[in-house]
Amino acid sequence: MNSKATHRVVIVGSGFGGLNAAQSLAGADARITVIDRQNFHTFQPLLYQVATAGLSPGEIAEPIRSILRRQKNIEVLMAEVAGFDLERRVVQTDDQEVAYDSLIVAAGASHAYFGHDEWIPFAPGLKTVEDAIEIRRRVLLAFELAEREASGGEPPAPLNFVVVGAGPTGVELAGTLAEICRHALAQDFRSIDPRQTRIHLVEGGPHVLPAYPEDLSRSALEQLQRLGVEVLTSTMVTKIEPGVIFMGERRMNAAVILWAAGVAASALGKKLGAPVDRAGRVLVQPDLSIPDHPEVFVIGDLAALKDKSGKMLPGVAPVAILEGRYVAKLIRREIEHGETSPGKRWPREPFHYWDKGSLATIGRAAAVAQFGKIHISGFLAWLAWLFVHIFFLIGFQNRVLVLIQWAWSYFTYERGARLITGSTKLPGWRQWDSGQSVNSKDGQEMSTKTYK
Amino acid sequence: MNSKATHRVVIVGSGFGGLNAAQSLAGADARITVIDRQNFHTFQPLLYQVATAGLSPGEIAEPIRSILRRQKNIEVLMAEVAGFDLERRVVQTDDQEVAYDSLIVAAGASHAYFGHDEWIPFAPGLKTVEDAIEIRRRVLLAFELAEREASGGEPPAPLNFVVVGAGPTGVELAGTLAEICRHALAQDFRSIDPRQTRIHLVEGGPHVLPAYPEDLSRSALEQLQRLGVEVLTSTMVTKIEPGVIFMGERRMNAAVILWAAGVAASALGKKLGAPVDRAGRVLVQPDLSIPDHPEVFVIGDLAALKDKSGKMLPGVAPVAILEGRYVAKLIRREIEHGETSPGKRWPREPFHYWDKGSLATIGRAAAVAQFGKIHISGFLAWLAWLFVHIFFLIGFQNRVLVLIQWAWSYFTYERGARLITGSTKLPGWRQWDSGQSVNSKDGQEMSTKTYK
Repeated sequence: MNSKATHRVVIVGSGFGGLNAAQSLAGADARITVIDRQNFHTFQPLLYQVATAGLSPGEIAEPIRSILRRQKNIEVLMAEVAGFDLERRVVQTDDQEVAYDSLIVAAGASHAYFGHDEWIPFAPGLKTVEDAIEIRRRVLLAFELAEREASGGEPPAPLNFVVVGAGPTGVELAGTLAEICRHALAQDFRSIDPRQTRIHLVEGGPHVLPAYPEDLSRSALEQLQRLGVEVLTSTMVTKIEPGVIFMGERRMNAAVILWAAGVAASALGKKLGAPVDRAGRVLVQPDLSIPDHPEVFVIGDLAALKDKSGKMLPGVAPVAILEGRYVAKLIRREIEHGETSPGKRWPREPFHYWDKGSLATIGRAAAVAQFGKIHISGFLAWLAWLFVHIFFLIGFQNRVLVLIQWAWSYFTYERGARLITGSTKLPGWRQWDSGQSVNSKDGQEMSTKTYK
Repeated sequence: MNSKATHRVVIVGSGFGGLNAAQSLAGADARITVIDRQNFHTFQPLLYQVATAGLSPGEIAEPIRSILRRQKNIEVLMAEVAGFDLERRVVQTDDQEVAYDSLIVAAGASHAYFGHDEWIPFAPGLKTVEDAIEIRRRVLLAFELAEREASGGEPPAPLNFVVVGAGPTGVELAGTLAEICRHALAQDFRSIDPRQTRIHLVEGGPHVLPAYPEDLSRSALEQLQRLGVEVLTSTMVTKIEPGVIFMGERRMNAAVILWAAGVAASALGKKLGAPVDRAGRVLVQPDLSIPDHPEVFVIGDLAALKDKSGKMLPGVAPVAILEGRYVAKLIRREIEHGETSPGKRWPREPFHYWDKGSLATIGRAAAVAQFGKIHISGFLAWLAWLFVHIFFLIGFQNRVLVLIQWAWSYFTYERGARLITGSTKLPGWRQWDSGQSVNSKDGQEMSTKTYK
């Protein structure tokens, strides 16, 4: 640690926002502490590749310590943040207190189940590496169990996979799952035919990729349908039970149900005592600080801020990255000018987000991209997506490995990381056949009646 | 499935033995079923690389289905085998029965805790991918918790890692752990110094690598000591508690304890009703079948067979591979000659193992190798080890990925897969300070007193 420095900066969370804030404070005259409950940074845009067995977790995750190793004024603590004492200016972890002069909270967000958290074990979301491994386990296991039943004499029933929510995550999950069934797994089974698997993408709104311009939404829909995904728009999920999903009158048996709808900001937002919106995001000032606490900043998916046009900034990596750099620059300047005492903090340049465009992938050579007025679809958009993501992937080694794996699966349709680890049970597997419902809190139990 | 074929072969287990038996039955006039409780083949010789964060699980594991995809006469079932009915010639899984005409049992072995299974949660072994991930978690977590304590004001106490058993697995674990502490992690912490970590390798016998010629054992010992490993030979472990290991009078606090001693054959061996040795290995006939059941074969680590010189064949991959091929050839020939009825099965050529040599790695550019009369050590032996293992690694993609990762970490000392997933607790972490013992069955509990 830089012992001469007296100004202490604490950064909570090491996603895109927290990490970029830390990196932008390189060489600053401050002692910086990054606190995260995990020891690695997850490259979230590629989580769906882990969930669909295309990449290994290690290839999209990098230890926070090695990313920040050369910044001697930074220490990293792996700890769970329990709360804050803004008056005493300390962050409380489960076993200690960490004092700060400037605080940056970048704790991110996860999925919202619209007040139905009881659905979580039956329809996992995709926000962490653990989530991705769990989804991979369920998808691969569904085929294994179906093959086992069919080889044991049961009539093979085509599998249903349901993805809830047609935002970028839902779209890439559905598209990639459809590909796997048609290609990677097509030749691997003897008693079932994975190509018969039906992938359903359920969206409450009228369009897939709602945040995108309508022409791109339409194009995305066509590309999804070309991949064999059955898209249900304007359809609300009303209930989820083990292995069964209800959409109003409609009831569908599903071997795997995945949740990619809604946003729920980290619970740490509320603990700052600042106003939050319905999703729990902190309503920050134009300088990303919270009211009455110019020394406390909230960035990334946890922050709610409107741009000049009054449109809410989207919860995407570019926004978090720029917010992290903006706050770091601001703290730096105030340290250099000795303006860190509350009275002298003003005026601050408000944060301005300049939208460079957005990309969403759908599957093999399928994507949509918007760069200002320019809208592109298909192979070109997919190439753009690919190179942007490999370029921003943290760690040179990861870039090489991911590039190889993608080239490999592009030409062979192979999926390199098809590991089932952990439990070998699926919540509600075939429970609709056994007529016996499943009593499960952790989603690990299942009915074995069907095997009798 | 090949519907014309009438002869049914069931192979239990898809390690080196089972997999090679299956592959050698390619095109045979038989219906083959491979049953494994996991959906992937694990390249066990590289498990220690996963445990030490050098490789990702996906890089040393390959889905059994994709390995055997092109063999249309083979079906793969992911299921747990519960037992056998040798009279009715069926394998019983947890939910169905699979009939056979020829049975190959290759269920492998795990570690023996010498009747102290209560030590398992406090000293995990390294036999499966799950084991490797758990060991990786514990090793990395030990440093994170120590850094957290030290940054919280506790005096940093140097960490002790203990590896029990100095066979090939114990030696490579101890050597690689020593390297990581000196290099990969050296710059990553601010409050502790990983180079102060003490790696202890405890062996009950007088030498490390007991199965190797004495000059190579001596060389291995020197190479270990050069890496900074403290080797304790002729030392028996008498008790293990959470975070504490006892060797007779000696009591040592240990942040991580790893078990690499003893061999316990799979419990399926006993269920065959054939005689077994103390380790539970099945005492097979010279043709690897069991008494009175020429149609039932046991191969790999589960089989106990002496060579001409009366020496027990070692539990290593080359033996299992050759046994698998031998049995497959034998079954093939008897099918072709219609000799599958018990009366006509004789005579059979006995299995003969021709030892091509053995290799053991110790760490970066450190290894020992024996090819008949030729004994080599150090860099050359390590190169030999490296190329043999990359060559036998299943899946071209894996070979490329592993080669890149090794080249990368060889030149940069980096470890690419430093992920802590799962629980963030360590059994008995610092419990000797809190004076409060830990009550834990699954090894996930710990005392948090020390953080107060």
